[in-house]
Amino acid sequence: MNGTAHTLIQMPAGVQCFVGEEARVRRAVEEQVVSVFEGWDFQEIIPPLFDYADVFASADLTPRTYSFVGRDGSLLALRPDFTSLLAKIAAGRLAGSPLPLRLYYSGEVLRYEPPRAGRRSELYQMGLEHLGGEPRAADCEVLAVAAECLERLGVNGWVLALGHVGVFNGILAGAPLEEAQWLALRDRVESKDEEGVAEAARAARLSPTVSAALVGLTGLTGDPRVLDKAEDALRGFAPALAAVSELRSVVAALDEAGLRGRLAVDLGEVRGLDYYTGLVFRAYAPGLGSEVGGGGRYDALLARFGRPLPAVGFMLGLDRLALLLERQGVFAPAVPPAPEPVGGAALGSDLARARGLREKGRRVRFGAGPETAR
Amino acid sequence: MNGTAHTLIQMPAGVQCFVGEEARVRRAVEEQVVSVFEGWDFQEIIPPLFDYADVFASADLTPRTYSFVGRDGSLLALRPDFTSLLAKIAAGRLAGSPLPLRLYYSGEVLRYEPPRAGRRSELYQMGLEHLGGEPRAADCEVLAVAAECLERLGVNGWVLALGHVGVFNGILAGAPLEEAQWLALRDRVESKDEEGVAEAARAARLSPTVSAALVGLTGLTGDPRVLDKAEDALRGFAPALAAVSELRSVVAALDEAGLRGRLAVDLGEVRGLDYYTGLVFRAYAPGLGSEVGGGGRYDALLARFGRPLPAVGFMLGLDRLALLLERQGVFAPAVPPAPEPVGGAALGSDLARARGLREKGRRVRFGAGPETAR
Repeated sequence: MNGTAHTLIQMPAGVQCFVGEEARVRRAVEEQVVSVFEGWDFQEIIPPLFDYADVFASADLTPRTYSFVGRDGSLLALRPDFTSLLAKIAAGRLAGSPLPLRLYYSGEVLRYEPPRAGRRSELYQMGLEHLGGEPRAADCEVLAVAAECLERLGVNGWVLALGHVGVFNGILAGAPLEEAQWLALRDRVESKDEEGVAEAARAARLSPTVSAALVGLTGLTGDPRVLDKAEDALRGFAPALAAVSELRSVVAALDEAGLRGRLAVDLGEVRGLDYYTGLVFRAYAPGLGSEVGGGGRYDALLARFGRPLPAVGFMLGLDRLALLLERQGVFAPAVPPAPEPVGGAALGSDLARARGLREKGRRVRFGAGPETAR
Repeated sequence: MNGTAHTLIQMPAGVQCFVGEEARVRRAVEEQVVSVFEGWDFQEIIPPLFDYADVFASADLTPRTYSFVGRDGSLLALRPDFTSLLAKIAAGRLAGSPLPLRLYYSGEVLRYEPPRAGRRSELYQMGLEHLGGEPRAADCEVLAVAAECLERLGVNGWVLALGHVGVFNGILAGAPLEEAQWLALRDRVESKDEEGVAEAARAARLSPTVSAALVGLTGLTGDPRVLDKAEDALRGFAPALAAVSELRSVVAALDEAGLRGRLAVDLGEVRGLDYYTGLVFRAYAPGLGSEVGGGGRYDALLARFGRPLPAVGFMLGLDRLALLLERQGVFAPAVPPAPEPVGGAALGSDLARARGLREKGRRVRFGAGPETAR
């Protein structure tokens, strides 16, 4: 066989394996999150694990997608993401369903990650998509569902950091940029690197006003009151101001709904999957160096599949969530009662006794004697 | 792109997609089955979705395995089966765990199926493995767990059909056969084709005694009392008689434990995955043309991974189970209460009201007005 040698029991890099207690926590977390999704009237969808590779084609995902050739010669890919897949199903199989469509999913995605410490190729995501609804109400609803998931799990100190890709894009709306220049600017803004932004702006021959506005984005972060500052800083960039105004109405509604203190704004938040077109957000909590989930609005994706619809969604990563809960020492699911040992030497009568206990709802451990190492 | 043309919303052949009610039933069935597994003190294992292809290498599975080359050049495969994977993990990561090991799993396997009506490439399996226990007690325990799953789900008329690969193999123990001859015999016995068995026996130059014993297997099926007939028919084939005697003790124990009437014997049951070495069984119920699950003993598999251990397991196919329950009209999971509509026009105060209802455990549907087709 080609490839690297491996021992009989070695696992490939990046794969998962959870046993016992770890699996029990994951199952309990998933159950909680799903019950919140159901509580907001989202319905479950169990999509295929793989599809034609072109469904997932994007600058961000393609290099990280596991693809293979099907027996009929078509190029297939293990899903690296649920959103594209659900958009396709909403445009196809669910084309006749009444709107808005509220869909949730819970399952694995697969992404090739270079073998680095702690990077998994298998990731378990629980998320939802809200398709064809009134956009501002849908944005608020999705954020409220995300918030409730974190509340229910007892996460401490969580925050939803909101951004809007229309701010960055709105500043650049009139500028004739090559894609590489645009990507360089986005990358430097995301890194909150003022110097780097200014340099990339010079390289792209942007006007001083545009350059200053982009540099300013790196500081427009923190308490939602930065939205006031943003309105001053972005005067003259009408599409960027419209984005700020959208964010403002979402923040106001969530404030009124009791989430004041849980919201932050980050107008330099422009990273993320290419399909986002509006609100973007990430959930953070102390104890985890990265976000535990996130989402955003993607109003152009469904048109790719022939059914233009406004859409917004989010997902929580179960792997990160379980790690966060463990580090914070919260969410201890109820430990099941210890099983009652039932002999096994008298095969028939012992089995009858075990079945009798089970009928009463008791847990049993069947078979002779105490456990032995072997 | 190479391969067949497909429309934007077309799905590849053989993939799954479940939405709403279908997904709800599957989730509820899975919950029931898992609670039975937990009730017998099995612990969950969540294994990787893919592994090195050699883990799954077998005459039966290899041609049906989706394989691909990893970025490091190694040949990987999407799991076509859980048992090999769990055996490997038991021999590797769980090498230090006390025995017996009781493990259960619930997830997808992927198998290439030629595009035929109703054949899926994605199959959802829920099953368990009992490793390193006293063999007869473990056989009985696993059958009792399978029985309880079917009882709990309310399946009507279910039967566990028991066989033992040691009967067929025991008859052929002394015969010098080529693999193709052995496979032809097994295939004809499995098909209960008396003529075919006799012909294959002649082709393999088997003695009249051996041939007659093999032909006889095709009729040794039905009520467990056929075990008496089998003892007569198999006199002279000591290893086959030992297998019959094993089956007899298992049947007696299950009878005593209240499963009389739920058991059948099929000594012509020799099909199935190559790794079975002892008891094999399948679960049947009226309304499904094929088994809903099955399992068996595989005492040689773990040695392949360097930890020789006796082992027995079984699995239920969620896809077949859901179809069976639907056809029988049993197991209707509780319908969740209808969601309460909450406006959305007054974004903040409506969202506050929705969150208030959720705190009281109510289901809500957020957003303006009735649903509209779009």
